[in-house]
Amino acid sequence: MFCWLNRLYRGLSSPTGRTTQLIWGSLSRSLVLSSRRRIPEFSSFVARTNTCGELRSSHLGQEVTLFGWIQYRRQNTFLVLRDFHGLIQLVIPQDESAASVKKILCEAPVESVVRVSGTVISRPPGQENPKMPTGEIEIKVKTAELLNSCKKLPFEIKDFVKKTEALRLQYRYLDLRSFQMQYNLRLRSQMVMKMREYLCNLHGFVDIETPTLFKKTPGIDIEMSFVDQTGIQSLIEGLLQYSWPRDKDPVVVPFPSMTFAEALATYGTDKPDTRFGMKIVDISDVFRNTEVRFLQDVLSKPKGTVKAIRIPEGAKYLKRKDIESIRKVAADHFNQEVLPVFLKASRHWNSPVAEFILEKQSLELIRLMELQEEDVILLTAGEHRKACSLLGKLRLECADLLEARGVVLRDPALFSFLWVVDFPLFLPKEENPGELESAHHPFTAPHPSDIQLLYTEPEKVRSQHYDLVLNGSEIGGGSIRIHDAELQRYILATLLKEDVKLLSHLLQALDYGAPPHGGIALGLDRLICLVTGAPSIRDVIAFPKSFRGYDLMSNAPDSIPPEELKPYHIRVSWPADSEAEKSSLDHPHHPES
Amino acid sequence: MFCWLNRLYRGLSSPTGRTTQLIWGSLSRSLVLSSRRRIPEFSSFVARTNTCGELRSSHLGQEVTLFGWIQYRRQNTFLVLRDFHGLIQLVIPQDESAASVKKILCEAPVESVVRVSGTVISRPPGQENPKMPTGEIEIKVKTAELLNSCKKLPFEIKDFVKKTEALRLQYRYLDLRSFQMQYNLRLRSQMVMKMREYLCNLHGFVDIETPTLFKKTPGIDIEMSFVDQTGIQSLIEGLLQYSWPRDKDPVVVPFPSMTFAEALATYGTDKPDTRFGMKIVDISDVFRNTEVRFLQDVLSKPKGTVKAIRIPEGAKYLKRKDIESIRKVAADHFNQEVLPVFLKASRHWNSPVAEFILEKQSLELIRLMELQEEDVILLTAGEHRKACSLLGKLRLECADLLEARGVVLRDPALFSFLWVVDFPLFLPKEENPGELESAHHPFTAPHPSDIQLLYTEPEKVRSQHYDLVLNGSEIGGGSIRIHDAELQRYILATLLKEDVKLLSHLLQALDYGAPPHGGIALGLDRLICLVTGAPSIRDVIAFPKSFRGYDLMSNAPDSIPPEELKPYHIRVSWPADSEAEKSSLDHPHHPES
Repeated sequence: MFCWLNRLYRGLSSPTGRTTQLIWGSLSRSLVLSSRRRIPEFSSFVARTNTCGELRSSHLGQEVTLFGWIQYRRQNTFLVLRDFHGLIQLVIPQDESAASVKKILCEAPVESVVRVSGTVISRPPGQENPKMPTGEIEIKVKTAELLNSCKKLPFEIKDFVKKTEALRLQYRYLDLRSFQMQYNLRLRSQMVMKMREYLCNLHGFVDIETPTLFKKTPGIDIEMSFVDQTGIQSLIEGLLQYSWPRDKDPVVVPFPSMTFAEALATYGTDKPDTRFGMKIVDISDVFRNTEVRFLQDVLSKPKGTVKAIRIPEGAKYLKRKDIESIRKVAADHFNQEVLPVFLKASRHWNSPVAEFILEKQSLELIRLMELQEEDVILLTAGEHRKACSLLGKLRLECADLLEARGVVLRDPALFSFLWVVDFPLFLPKEENPGELESAHHPFTAPHPSDIQLLYTEPEKVRSQHYDLVLNGSEIGGGSIRIHDAELQRYILATLLKEDVKLLSHLLQALDYGAPPHGGIALGLDRLICLVTGAPSIRDVIAFPKSFRGYDLMSNAPDSIPPEELKPYHIRVSWPADSEAEKSSLDHPHHPES
Repeated sequence: MFCWLNRLYRGLSSPTGRTTQLIWGSLSRSLVLSSRRRIPEFSSFVARTNTCGELRSSHLGQEVTLFGWIQYRRQNTFLVLRDFHGLIQLVIPQDESAASVKKILCEAPVESVVRVSGTVISRPPGQENPKMPTGEIEIKVKTAELLNSCKKLPFEIKDFVKKTEALRLQYRYLDLRSFQMQYNLRLRSQMVMKMREYLCNLHGFVDIETPTLFKKTPGIDIEMSFVDQTGIQSLIEGLLQYSWPRDKDPVVVPFPSMTFAEALATYGTDKPDTRFGMKIVDISDVFRNTEVRFLQDVLSKPKGTVKAIRIPEGAKYLKRKDIESIRKVAADHFNQEVLPVFLKASRHWNSPVAEFILEKQSLELIRLMELQEEDVILLTAGEHRKACSLLGKLRLECADLLEARGVVLRDPALFSFLWVVDFPLFLPKEENPGELESAHHPFTAPHPSDIQLLYTEPEKVRSQHYDLVLNGSEIGGGSIRIHDAELQRYILATLLKEDVKLLSHLLQALDYGAPPHGGIALGLDRLICLVTGAPSIRDVIAFPKSFRGYDLMSNAPDSIPPEELKPYHIRVSWPADSEAEKSSLDHPHHPES
């Protein structure tokens, strides 16, 4: 991503490459498209005649006034001016009568902000820049005014992209000038605007502001009455279709759908990335009558399974250290053993367990998993859920490793949406499997077919929760809610053993004729991150917190003197054993980190 | 406002009156208008065929499925069903074969929510309701399903409007079903949507989410680069014009503008209500050579003045107790004396000071203030600002009193916008007039013509702050900001004697080529309140806090056990002398109350 920015800053005569064109193309195209629908009046209320980026040969001869930042200056003869819309080349006047203008334009440091007026002229033949939208013209400057100088930058702007994220966050107001951040945030604004149009203008939704202390996370939330799960899913499919950027392939609806059980069994996760294969295969039956002791042990337990994934041409691409790291992941995160099995030439198994795999089992494996020479299979044995989760994680690890070796697996230009449905309503508590807790939240409605099970086998009840997954990331989740007060009370008090007094106002509201309703919350940050292809979610948020929850730009959080807390009757109360911690804010006990 | 709701609930045959029609008209018209632009697909994702409110004679014969709340039932024969879009009459089937349907529809308590299916039929001749949009038709019900029952309401819905605000807030989910709340919140959503369209789609603004802890109050905020005061004002005038509801007279631009000095001198406030007169007149010169001792004293001091307002026909409408309350306001709030002077028949002054007013002065007063018989003038003497502020307040008090007696003064259908500009940049500190504080905030830019005064007579510097006033309420305020770091530093450190270290990140940002910029924040709550004519700002907010800062619906704030605070390292620390207060949350030390 940042290589585009780098190339842009290298100078005007060097080829800027397809990717930069893509940014420019996208930005210009979306602006042009929006001007076909409505004319964006960028210059209605400011004193400029045009933006830097909009001028073309069609403006030849016009007197223009522009505002912008000095991006680059060459030998006191040329200057590149930048605004949010693009770049334009200025010709610095050389004659004596314009000495003051020349002085201003030559002395102002890079990234100073100026106003210039002048005439649009053609660039001399041979000096046009075909890669620049304004590349056929330049401005013959008549007047200039320095609006604000820029003091010496902490680093070269063209090196900005190589700087740490911490530095970018600390100087966010500089970072936000980059084309990439401009593109990301403008695209975000446009997508959200289109979502609002779809919901409010086209479908009669009402935008209600809920009090800050109610909402935990930002992002448009949606609630509807008289709707079922299919209705909400259709709404969201239409929403994404409508708001999808025009320079990308249109979204195809309806999205495919998969049950949670299938997602777990096939991909080892509740948010499958369906852009590539390497699916989990259950090979328990292959080893049903094995002599291998540890496999016997596992298979004899309830839900004991043997599972495997196939890594195509794994033997060709994976090195010893990769296998080691894979096995370490398995051991550290899942406390499980995973056994790599290499299928070499002449169907010769190369593996510690190879000697245990009988000929018959070998052929069965090859058949079941469609193995080829040079494939690697990762095999594990254990309880179903645990084994699937492990292989699901390893599946992704292997994808990373293969892509690092040049294999094309997950196309970032491909957007694979997927609904995951039929989650269980409850899960056994980790610390006490005899008790139940909500898989998502206690207000999720049970599947209508499973209502009776609530009273007999609640752990088998499916919920009406639905997750929306995009390229292996969860970008939305919601559910049909419980609208019957009795049912809600039963689930809270009897099944979950919660204190219903805390939620008495909710139960009361349900009792007064609350309609059937459901909703969904979209994870806007994550969605925009995927749409733009940004490497980090912080690249699509204007003023994000750092990974550890700090705002590096304004130095928050920070200590407050006790007198300021007094009117609120609260006090900071560090634990007795943390004097050292108290003196250094480097290790905050941030509840969210 | 609530009399409309009351009439609506009185029954179907009683005339509902022009005001209810207005609500209906407005609601329907805005919905129809929006459907002319785009078809609002209210029923795309839900299982109904239509909304209750959209059916007309044109639907005769159609089979429809509706969702709604039971608003009213008459003698087990008719039922009125309500949804957000309107009301429809249902005919409860009487024949034996439909006994189960009849049972459902007759036993469900009022405000239960049901689904019904049936056929659209004409009402028998003579039974149409011309005041009801669906009044020519009714539904012959075939099937019915109870979706959620409503337990006994704490009060009759038709009495809801007479209930205290506290009760309405506690049962907000019931209150929100009222037509008035529905109208208010839907209008709010539509206006805000249009504002977003104007800013983002038409003028290239970018919607940036700022972190929650940065923003103190809700409401779309706007910032722009390269703009001056006039530009922002034009932007806002266009914004309000564009988003103004279509059922009201269009907004006329540009708005009139008044300096702060003039607003204070003429209306006694920085947010004048220009819908009526009773302006303040300076009558110092009339009494320049008076013998009256207390007037002499005042006029001999710096900025000492004598001022008055004229209350037309005051003698006719104001009673003795009104005059007493006026004098009390003056004494309590302003520690000033105000002298009412009655001009009776034959120009006879009826007043304690009448004997002190010489003939010549009397004639001058009558001429200056264009007095008529039966007028009352309120006269006060004191320092300019104090005298103006007092009379400004009394002007509004008298307007209230006159309107209570039937005089038409301030037409609520009239929307008088006004810019107030040229505020001072600084004000002397109340507790220490030798020091300066910012009149608005320290980032406000000085008027360009007054820059030199910053270094010589800073108290005379005018700012580039602008307030937007509507019918005497402030609905927006903003300013051109300081973009020069040196100037900002000078103002903060030298003039305001603030600690610049706290704002070092801001000063640094300015130093890196921050462009000239300015902005404005609109008080959406206040604006929508004025547009809808709601009696209280809480009537245009979905889930407001009570006057004292409580959320009555969910019982917040509430105590939290110390264990829950522990991970955050904070403790509640009540003052030692407030055990009694601690035990009762009726008197919270709420910092904002």
